[in-house]
Amino acid sequence: MTKASNSEWDVAGIGNAIVDVLAHAEDRFLAQNGLAKGTMTLIDAARAAELYETMGPAIEVSGGSTANTLAALASFGGKGAFIGKVRNDQLGGIFRHDIEAVGVTFRTPPATEGPPTARCLIFVTPDAQRTMQTYLGACADLGPADIDEAFIAAAKITYLEGYLWDPPQAKEAFLKAARLAHAAGRKVALSLSDPFCVERHRDEFRELVQHHVDILFANEHEVMSLYETKSFDEIFQHVRGSCEIAALTRSEKGSVVVSGEEVHIIDAMPFAAVVDTTGAGDAYAGGFLYGLTRDYDLAQCARMGSLAAAEVISHYGARPEMPLAQLAAERLS
Amino acid sequence: MTKASNSEWDVAGIGNAIVDVLAHAEDRFLAQNGLAKGTMTLIDAARAAELYETMGPAIEVSGGSTANTLAALASFGGKGAFIGKVRNDQLGGIFRHDIEAVGVTFRTPPATEGPPTARCLIFVTPDAQRTMQTYLGACADLGPADIDEAFIAAAKITYLEGYLWDPPQAKEAFLKAARLAHAAGRKVALSLSDPFCVERHRDEFRELVQHHVDILFANEHEVMSLYETKSFDEIFQHVRGSCEIAALTRSEKGSVVVSGEEVHIIDAMPFAAVVDTTGAGDAYAGGFLYGLTRDYDLAQCARMGSLAAAEVISHYGARPEMPLAQLAAERLS
Repeated sequence: MTKASNSEWDVAGIGNAIVDVLAHAEDRFLAQNGLAKGTMTLIDAARAAELYETMGPAIEVSGGSTANTLAALASFGGKGAFIGKVRNDQLGGIFRHDIEAVGVTFRTPPATEGPPTARCLIFVTPDAQRTMQTYLGACADLGPADIDEAFIAAAKITYLEGYLWDPPQAKEAFLKAARLAHAAGRKVALSLSDPFCVERHRDEFRELVQHHVDILFANEHEVMSLYETKSFDEIFQHVRGSCEIAALTRSEKGSVVVSGEEVHIIDAMPFAAVVDTTGAGDAYAGGFLYGLTRDYDLAQCARMGSLAAAEVISHYGARPEMPLAQLAAERLS
Repeated sequence: MTKASNSEWDVAGIGNAIVDVLAHAEDRFLAQNGLAKGTMTLIDAARAAELYETMGPAIEVSGGSTANTLAALASFGGKGAFIGKVRNDQLGGIFRHDIEAVGVTFRTPPATEGPPTARCLIFVTPDAQRTMQTYLGACADLGPADIDEAFIAAAKITYLEGYLWDPPQAKEAFLKAARLAHAAGRKVALSLSDPFCVERHRDEFRELVQHHVDILFANEHEVMSLYETKSFDEIFQHVRGSCEIAALTRSEKGSVVVSGEEVHIIDAMPFAAVVDTTGAGDAYAGGFLYGLTRDYDLAQCARMGSLAAAEVISHYGARPEMPLAQLAAERLS
């Protein structure tokens, strides 16, 4: 993985640039507002305003799936670069501050007109599940012009989130980045993001996984949706032949990593209390990718992913609060 | 206290409308940036931008001393109304959402021009102390015109924060409100806010406490600064004769309430871990005022204040996360 020369970045990540708005909510609230628990739903500006109106007092914290993954990577000491679109507004400034503050490079210029920076209204129920309602706003402005060839070529791995399939032009940016990465002899990684996202774009995602993706991240529900199967073993068989490396996460059951004949079944990392599962999958990918870019074996990559996920679910918010490099030194040595 | 008729509100609070930006910081960081630990310093727009640049990844959460007090009051079931100035920008919208979401009325129209909504950069050190750097922005626009006579007359208690002495016109709003409250047969409460705030306005604050304030909230450092004394007993003697009720908070030592001959020495409420002391004094005032507007005796008012403070320091952020009415039913009965 690290054999390719002149790697300025470990991972170049492309994703929706989103500020999360988190509040507690009861199950009753989800039912009353027709929200499907544990999933991400896209909403328009009017619905976002309406839901925010009924939402309890909230905190704002930078999010976005890929951005969270890069924050975890950086926390291990990896070098990440982010491509994504904010507006030149206050939330956009917050997003930029937070990702740069954890040491991730963010050079995409903000939109100077059009819709505001994206936000994701997150309802955290007492069982620590999160239900997300996303208004994409300025993310819809991300397009192929934002993908810089030299930038992609200088990263060992180009990482893409499935959510990018939602805003219309981002898909083109996504495919352009994958082509450029492969042309430069680099690897392409994809996270499937969410079972409903997979449902919205199933055929395209299958084709993508088969032909453009070297490293796949998904939880079992997402892969079940991708292949319309019901048992984990069926999923596993499907995935096995479809890309170079697949890391399948299973919440408290841990994760399974498959690469050709190689298979690892890794337990979840024990940690204190589960407070908020937001960002667990993103953090897992960040830890895994850090290991991969350091040529660690796949079992160790999975352990680093599990460690990152365990840290992130132990508190509110989707980015690590403790330095993962230090945590890894303490718990994985 | 509840004898006056036609009380639409328990408390009308006037304060700076601020969004807090919280991040972890080491003591070293405070020293390098010349920040005086545990205090609030006013900064201009340029310094705010410069500090934000060096700050770690942060979360945004509505704050402001009076607003936090009203949030605690509302959490006990009290009816609060807030007067304060935001700009019509994204942070202003967040501030409004959060205070309305906890059930506090907020009718002050936002500024449509001029500086943006105020923010307070809060650095939380590993000892759970907070060091605050405030850019007042739109708060400077609050003036006497924002004080509505009918509104003040309809509240049992008008509550003011000492920080209001910082922006130039707010002082006039503050004095107008105190006069209107007394003219309507209502009570006026003041929080001294911060020892450095007291130092900036010492003579005016002394005159204020002596002549305009019925209920005083202060921690021991603030009253030491007000009367330039060094022992708690000296403070206590000074305060005794100067206003109807004084509630002096002493962190882990609890609080002392004095009203004429009546004196209560109330222990701090034991609670789990101390995570972040931001807002402890604000919450104490909210609980105390709730008790007072319900005609509870002063010892019980102090216990309600302690309970609110204990809840707030057990997590990040300055507003209660658990319903204080329920907590009071469990722990104060």
